[in-house]
Amino acid sequence: MATTTEITSPTLQLAQQLIARESVTPIDDGCQELLAARLAKLGFSNETMVFEDTTNLWSRRNQQGPVFCFAGHTDVVPSGPVKEWISPPFSPSLRDGYLYGRGAADMKGSLAAMIVATERFVTARPEHQGSIAFLITSDEEGPFINGTTRVIDTLEARQEKITWCLVGEPSSTKRLGDTVKNGRRGSLTGFLTINGIQGHVAYPHLAKNPVHLVAPALAELVNTHWDHGNEFFPPTTFQISNVHSGTGAGNVIPGSCEVQFNFRYSTEVTAVELQNRVTDILEQHDLSFHLSWTHNGAPFLTDHGDLVDATCAAIQAVTGQATELSTAGGTSDGRFIAPTGAQVIELGPVNATIHKVNECVKATDLDILTDVYEAILERLLC
Amino acid sequence: MATTTEITSPTLQLAQQLIARESVTPIDDGCQELLAARLAKLGFSNETMVFEDTTNLWSRRNQQGPVFCFAGHTDVVPSGPVKEWISPPFSPSLRDGYLYGRGAADMKGSLAAMIVATERFVTARPEHQGSIAFLITSDEEGPFINGTTRVIDTLEARQEKITWCLVGEPSSTKRLGDTVKNGRRGSLTGFLTINGIQGHVAYPHLAKNPVHLVAPALAELVNTHWDHGNEFFPPTTFQISNVHSGTGAGNVIPGSCEVQFNFRYSTEVTAVELQNRVTDILEQHDLSFHLSWTHNGAPFLTDHGDLVDATCAAIQAVTGQATELSTAGGTSDGRFIAPTGAQVIELGPVNATIHKVNECVKATDLDILTDVYEAILERLLC
Repeated sequence: MATTTEITSPTLQLAQQLIARESVTPIDDGCQELLAARLAKLGFSNETMVFEDTTNLWSRRNQQGPVFCFAGHTDVVPSGPVKEWISPPFSPSLRDGYLYGRGAADMKGSLAAMIVATERFVTARPEHQGSIAFLITSDEEGPFINGTTRVIDTLEARQEKITWCLVGEPSSTKRLGDTVKNGRRGSLTGFLTINGIQGHVAYPHLAKNPVHLVAPALAELVNTHWDHGNEFFPPTTFQISNVHSGTGAGNVIPGSCEVQFNFRYSTEVTAVELQNRVTDILEQHDLSFHLSWTHNGAPFLTDHGDLVDATCAAIQAVTGQATELSTAGGTSDGRFIAPTGAQVIELGPVNATIHKVNECVKATDLDILTDVYEAILERLLC
Repeated sequence: MATTTEITSPTLQLAQQLIARESVTPIDDGCQELLAARLAKLGFSNETMVFEDTTNLWSRRNQQGPVFCFAGHTDVVPSGPVKEWISPPFSPSLRDGYLYGRGAADMKGSLAAMIVATERFVTARPEHQGSIAFLITSDEEGPFINGTTRVIDTLEARQEKITWCLVGEPSSTKRLGDTVKNGRRGSLTGFLTINGIQGHVAYPHLAKNPVHLVAPALAELVNTHWDHGNEFFPPTTFQISNVHSGTGAGNVIPGSCEVQFNFRYSTEVTAVELQNRVTDILEQHDLSFHLSWTHNGAPFLTDHGDLVDATCAAIQAVTGQATELSTAGGTSDGRFIAPTGAQVIELGPVNATIHKVNECVKATDLDILTDVYEAILERLLC
């Protein structure tokens, strides 16, 4: 396997073609068409699934199991201030060994590596075992309502199962492959309104100050230990993201107080348990409140097994380095795929510059990543 | 003394002339000219003091002490939604024994009563003892920067002193004269910024959540007893009026938290003591914070003495009712006059409708108020 970088490497070339497409969520801007055309040449069946404003691609080669699926997204976050970019965000630029452009690391580089790895593998092993699939959305960075979750719903409805899923999210921290995500914490958001009675600060006996009422409860919530985590998960965390109360006037006691908070939680607790514990604390403080919840995703975990082992072995073989399993960080579309019973891991480039100006990826890393992806296919489907 | 109401009573007539002038803060709209013309006929010397956008009147009859001063304001708060008024706010209307219009109770009715009482008193007692003065501003309802405080500064600079000051604020609660304000609590506002470190809710170890940091400190502040008050003052109160933190996004730990709060405080503590105690509590919680203060007014108290006694006696004589001394409620311009050493009380109509739509005053009350004001002059200057 070649790990030297050439400006003309097929992965780099495809990554540049993708970056040049201005596919800010939920716009795909022809990225999936490009991928589908490459896959069609390899004998994949392409199925475009459009849900509302979102275009998704489900592409599969062969019908038998086991099913290895590459999952990813063509959409990118907005560029931010264009003038802060050294080169325009949607004009891929190679400088000093790095490929610059919005999506270079998250995750058009990974998509290019998946395609090129698959091309090499299928060309070398046209009679490989099982099936290879691609689940590509243009809604990962947005509201994630019409993307992966709806493709999965469609597959589940027709009992089409994924055995192993590799999500191309930029999992690496310092060196390519140093970290693989084998799970993610759950995410649960609470929207709390404390009811008080508005009044004049000069007449507090005629009012009920919701900030005063909630302050001791918030102090208790922020000091609560929710669990101790476990081998794979850090302890569950609680963070208040927004607090707003008051009319702006200095002499008015506010009538209500709005608090938004978020749990990132381990597999040691459930969303329902957390909801009950928050409600209990608020009730113990004798508050009049309204509380609603958004469950952004349950935690998932892929323990040691075929997929984790093949991935770690492939990284070791290609890079000579060991890899670390981690469940840290934000959510990913893996949360929609794992509940089907699939083994899910995330492996992609170094994430240092994602969502920032001057997003970039080391050019050699895309070729190494291509080699690793190919090596995983070889381990699982030969 | 006549206490029967006639539509043609001089006080009612003057009150209507004043209400017809649209003198929303800081506009005077000719009110002071009208008052000054009436006073000039009685031998008062008028001195118009214009500071920035605010017109003030200092008017005085005689040069010897003691000096009895009527204090008040010609400006009114905005009308609020005009369509909710039964009659237009700046068209005085007499209905069912009440005079309607913006300023009827706060405090154009009082101004009219002061003028008519003075006319009667001076006509009956042209050789009265001491001096009578009027301190009238058009900035009481606004920022109170260019009104009473600057007139007082001017008088102090030339060592001109007020002995007794009657502020015409609507002090009565149910019946005219049932309550006289013989002091006011102090008002102190704090502006607190808690510094944290912004970050992603998935990586709380890289951030410092200012809401989490401040919650226990706020819980302590709202549960602190600042003093026990005294014979004239209720205990000092602390109220949070505004809390704002967060970007609006649910996945971002805020970088700072803004808290605004207000003390209404008794004569048992000082503003500096309160500031120190708040700072101590924040420092005990090991917070990185910025705290600034606005001192809206020190508390003042006029204990039993010439002015309080004359006022209570006059109310008793005119209405047959006892009166209650109170320091409750918001601030008034009395806070600027009391520090000169003057005895200050507030006596005016029932305050039930002030600052509301359909502000009104009982027509007979304005005539009773005129009689009371006149009776006070008789007790102090004869």
